[in-house]
Amino acid sequence: MNIGLLGCGNVGHGVLEILDADKKHDVKVTKILVRHERNNGDGRFTLVPSDVTGNPDIDLVTEFIGGVESAAEFVKASMQHGKHAVTANKKMLAECMPEMFRTAHENGVELFFEASVGGGIPWISNIRNIREIDEISSFRGIINGTTNYILSSMEKGMDFAPVLAEAQTLGYAEPDPTDDIDGFDTRYKTVISCEEAFDTYIRPEEIPVFGIRHISKSDMDYASENGMTVKLLSRVVKNGDSIAASVMPCMIAKDNELAAVKANSNAIELTSSNLGKLLFIGQGAGTYPTSHAVVQDILAIQNGKKHDYSRLTRGTVENAGASGVYYIRTAAPEVFSEIESERAGNGAVITVKTDLEKVMGLIDRANDPELFIAEVV
Amino acid sequence: MNIGLLGCGNVGHGVLEILDADKKHDVKVTKILVRHERNNGDGRFTLVPSDVTGNPDIDLVTEFIGGVESAAEFVKASMQHGKHAVTANKKMLAECMPEMFRTAHENGVELFFEASVGGGIPWISNIRNIREIDEISSFRGIINGTTNYILSSMEKGMDFAPVLAEAQTLGYAEPDPTDDIDGFDTRYKTVISCEEAFDTYIRPEEIPVFGIRHISKSDMDYASENGMTVKLLSRVVKNGDSIAASVMPCMIAKDNELAAVKANSNAIELTSSNLGKLLFIGQGAGTYPTSHAVVQDILAIQNGKKHDYSRLTRGTVENAGASGVYYIRTAAPEVFSEIESERAGNGAVITVKTDLEKVMGLIDRANDPELFIAEVV
Repeated sequence: MNIGLLGCGNVGHGVLEILDADKKHDVKVTKILVRHERNNGDGRFTLVPSDVTGNPDIDLVTEFIGGVESAAEFVKASMQHGKHAVTANKKMLAECMPEMFRTAHENGVELFFEASVGGGIPWISNIRNIREIDEISSFRGIINGTTNYILSSMEKGMDFAPVLAEAQTLGYAEPDPTDDIDGFDTRYKTVISCEEAFDTYIRPEEIPVFGIRHISKSDMDYASENGMTVKLLSRVVKNGDSIAASVMPCMIAKDNELAAVKANSNAIELTSSNLGKLLFIGQGAGTYPTSHAVVQDILAIQNGKKHDYSRLTRGTVENAGASGVYYIRTAAPEVFSEIESERAGNGAVITVKTDLEKVMGLIDRANDPELFIAEVV
Repeated sequence: MNIGLLGCGNVGHGVLEILDADKKHDVKVTKILVRHERNNGDGRFTLVPSDVTGNPDIDLVTEFIGGVESAAEFVKASMQHGKHAVTANKKMLAECMPEMFRTAHENGVELFFEASVGGGIPWISNIRNIREIDEISSFRGIINGTTNYILSSMEKGMDFAPVLAEAQTLGYAEPDPTDDIDGFDTRYKTVISCEEAFDTYIRPEEIPVFGIRHISKSDMDYASENGMTVKLLSRVVKNGDSIAASVMPCMIAKDNELAAVKANSNAIELTSSNLGKLLFIGQGAGTYPTSHAVVQDILAIQNGKKHDYSRLTRGTVENAGASGVYYIRTAAPEVFSEIESERAGNGAVITVKTDLEKVMGLIDRANDPELFIAEVV
């Protein structure tokens, strides 16, 4: 099987290294699309996209370009030329899934994306196996390593800003950390997991998202003094035909399995009829875990694994009925006075059990750009 | 694909239920060996083993008989008649693996056993996928639900004997709890995991085993006062060609991921070159998790998954070089006086870092049948 790489950054290089070293499988990288010429004597590099996307000798492309437009264009073109595709691009998938799935289906090719959620954690392949004979009813998890790194460091007593700066220095956080700290990355991965678990496509913007940009030391201290820690969780529950979903910081008991997930690790848990709870904890990013997941997809496709792209249906988020105890720190606590609540030492409001949609309405009314909310779970 | 069941207890019934309800796959149960006649109008039941093991219409047998001799005999006979086999029988596999693998290899059939370790946790299938492109260097885990249930309850303040009695009442522990509480069940699963991770067969009796039969409230209290809890761990490390292995209670920090594994859950962690650490937490036993794993094996075999049974080589345990800090409570603490140590409030000896083999020699010399040892990790 001949493989074409679209892009060759860290993960692309990792995949190239694994495949070039592989003697066991009939897979070889024959063309590599890059942005800038490389004079390293390796004749496989090209600057021309169609050398990969339209190359009749290539059976499968892997996409490492990132972003949405070019990535989607190249993956689509490759599939239209009858090539299978493997991508780790969660943003592109979350935005363009229906079109990508339609293209895969119409051209009779596979589009695999194990590395797009949970990095080296075999989340998607295990969901697919489980669903062959079982039904998933919910999933939840820590699926963004950057925010988990920040929260783990804050647990040790640091404040948000210096930890973010440190994470940026270490390369765990982007120069523009928006996608991570505002929860958008977690939301993309939630969209992809919804497809896997329920065959349902939900637009990213339909999932309520609260990030950790405004968490302060006093919030973590409150959690800690009450035997809890803070984690940014994706949580999705299927109720009949409807799906409740959110991305939100949660205060969870320190002896919960998710509380023990430190540094930039990821953790994802599903609940199914046969298995009850099944939790995976591992490296959610990094060159080798991610490259490994990409190569697993390549081998799965080579071994004839198939996904049914025609099953995807459009769904909406239905959070009516979702309720919880919320910790809300805001300059406008009076807005929340219609909910019965206590006050933390730092002035934060801790509500009694309240409908999420009611709380979201009051958050809009409070109009406090620095408000921090966490559910106490 | 026609399936024959050898035995039909809880797990057998679960498998029957899943397969009888399945409309998606071409698998059907056609014969079921039972011990006592059933007059339920289902003509598939038989009292004659060869109706299953020698039945030319059956493609695959699943074994739920338990024990070693008959189970091994029936599985072997089935494979010799060209049938694939699936079993959850860890004791039989751990004892008879070389013979079973030889029989599978010689007859060109598959012998799968996902359910034998970690119940519903897809441990073995994930190891197999990972090893296609990666090397595993070590694994460790909580792979016996009964002892984890007992230890979790003791963490809440109960003493050993009443918790064991409760576990027996709930059906979590056998009337004769030896295999669980003395660590033998964990050892069988360690043998099977060694084969999966390293292609190496180690005889069960070669792995040092220390159970929890003699743990007391004072031991758990010591752990708790020092920010730890006690878990019975299987731990295996590959160093070049040699394998270090043990089954031993361990005192681990309360914020460790394994400390959060409660009740009768299982947790297994591997370390590989690409992935770093990958941890699975789930139901290690129970009718549906176990049945699910058996059916996954059936589908994997139907989909052409193969295992190379000729790769298995005989190995030995080499714990020279293994060392640790040990907590030892014994009526003969003076035996350990040649190791620098501290004393806990209950008189237990806590050693400095010491060679495991030296400690094992002194334990022999102490000759205290009620000695309790845990490694402080």
